[in-house]
Amino acid sequence: MEFNKIIRGPKRESNSEESVYQILDAGFLCHVAFQHEGQTMMIPTAYGRKENSLYLHGSTKNFMLNQLVSGQTACISVTHLDGIVLARTLFDTSVNYRSVVLFGKALMVEDEQERMDGLKIITEHIIKGRWDEVPVGSENELKATMVIKFTIDRASAKIRNEGPKGDEEKTNEVWSGHIPLVMKALTPVPDEKFGSSYPVCESVKNYYEQHK
Amino acid sequence: MEFNKIIRGPKRESNSEESVYQILDAGFLCHVAFQHEGQTMMIPTAYGRKENSLYLHGSTKNFMLNQLVSGQTACISVTHLDGIVLARTLFDTSVNYRSVVLFGKALMVEDEQERMDGLKIITEHIIKGRWDEVPVGSENELKATMVIKFTIDRASAKIRNEGPKGDEEKTNEVWSGHIPLVMKALTPVPDEKFGSSYPVCESVKNYYEQHK
Repeated sequence: MEFNKIIRGPKRESNSEESVYQILDAGFLCHVAFQHEGQTMMIPTAYGRKENSLYLHGSTKNFMLNQLVSGQTACISVTHLDGIVLARTLFDTSVNYRSVVLFGKALMVEDEQERMDGLKIITEHIIKGRWDEVPVGSENELKATMVIKFTIDRASAKIRNEGPKGDEEKTNEVWSGHIPLVMKALTPVPDEKFGSSYPVCESVKNYYEQHK
Repeated sequence: MEFNKIIRGPKRESNSEESVYQILDAGFLCHVAFQHEGQTMMIPTAYGRKENSLYLHGSTKNFMLNQLVSGQTACISVTHLDGIVLARTLFDTSVNYRSVVLFGKALMVEDEQERMDGLKIITEHIIKGRWDEVPVGSENELKATMVIKFTIDRASAKIRNEGPKGDEEKTNEVWSGHIPLVMKALTPVPDEKFGSSYPVCESVKNYYEQHK
């Protein structure tokens, strides 16, 4: 993996494999930008990571996935919003965040074992343990599913995680600081269509405990 | 504003101006995809909306902003992750979300009044009321700030906000349902560099009350 130098806000550069992986592993929603007939397009989707690759999946008819395996260098970004930073001037007002921007190419995963591994990696990335609790799906459903592997060629990571900066010389006397933001899970809601609910699974319990 | 038809998951299509605006107004972080010398690139940034336009800002030297005003049709996406949907099979496992994908062109805002209006729209979009509590910045800081206006030409909106679907025929007896996810604010943290803290401002109090 090579790294792209951060030009704007170089103090926030956090270009290391460890940092890129930590940011990727902290979420499962990415935005994928690609081109189709010269037009820039972008779609949000779920991902899972293994080493320096991201696995994406969808229908075999999925427009984006089919564009991605056409050989183009696509761009994937993952951003976690961690807070609003309120300085003594609006100029120095900012946000706390962790973000990566990745460049790379994607290949269709053809090998059946790797396809299943890819699906497991995505599932376990969204909610750990669910893979062992429910079946993947029918044979036809699996046939209709496409898995692609995006290998990170170049990456950059930016992290800002502190209070206001840059307003040290300002003398207006006003509250300044930051408001931390976190993604929280609310109480899991059972599916009502099967009537009375079954005991909450371990994967759901664990996720809720970690994120409530 | 014209609308792009949703091909994958058309049941989740929510293509109306009202829906697009509601999704945009519920956040302030977008991903902007553009091209530079044929390469797809993407950067996350803050935005504010007025009617069918988004205002973005940054340094006059900001690479992305300067690419955006070069005449190309860029793509901006905003996605809110609202939950994890756990069906009786992994095939029907999904997420709840609200997302928009926008296509349009951006112009540099030259008019001084509109520049200030744009900055106010972005600021108020991030945290309402802050604009009146602190000064914008020095004359030099304002000179070094670029404001651009991205007008939405075509848009699509997708919303999924329900429990599992598609697993109606599955007979495996296991908990299924969804885990709602929400972005929460934690207690505001005063900036320590100015010594003892000033009373918390109304903008911060209100934001915290609404998001805690």
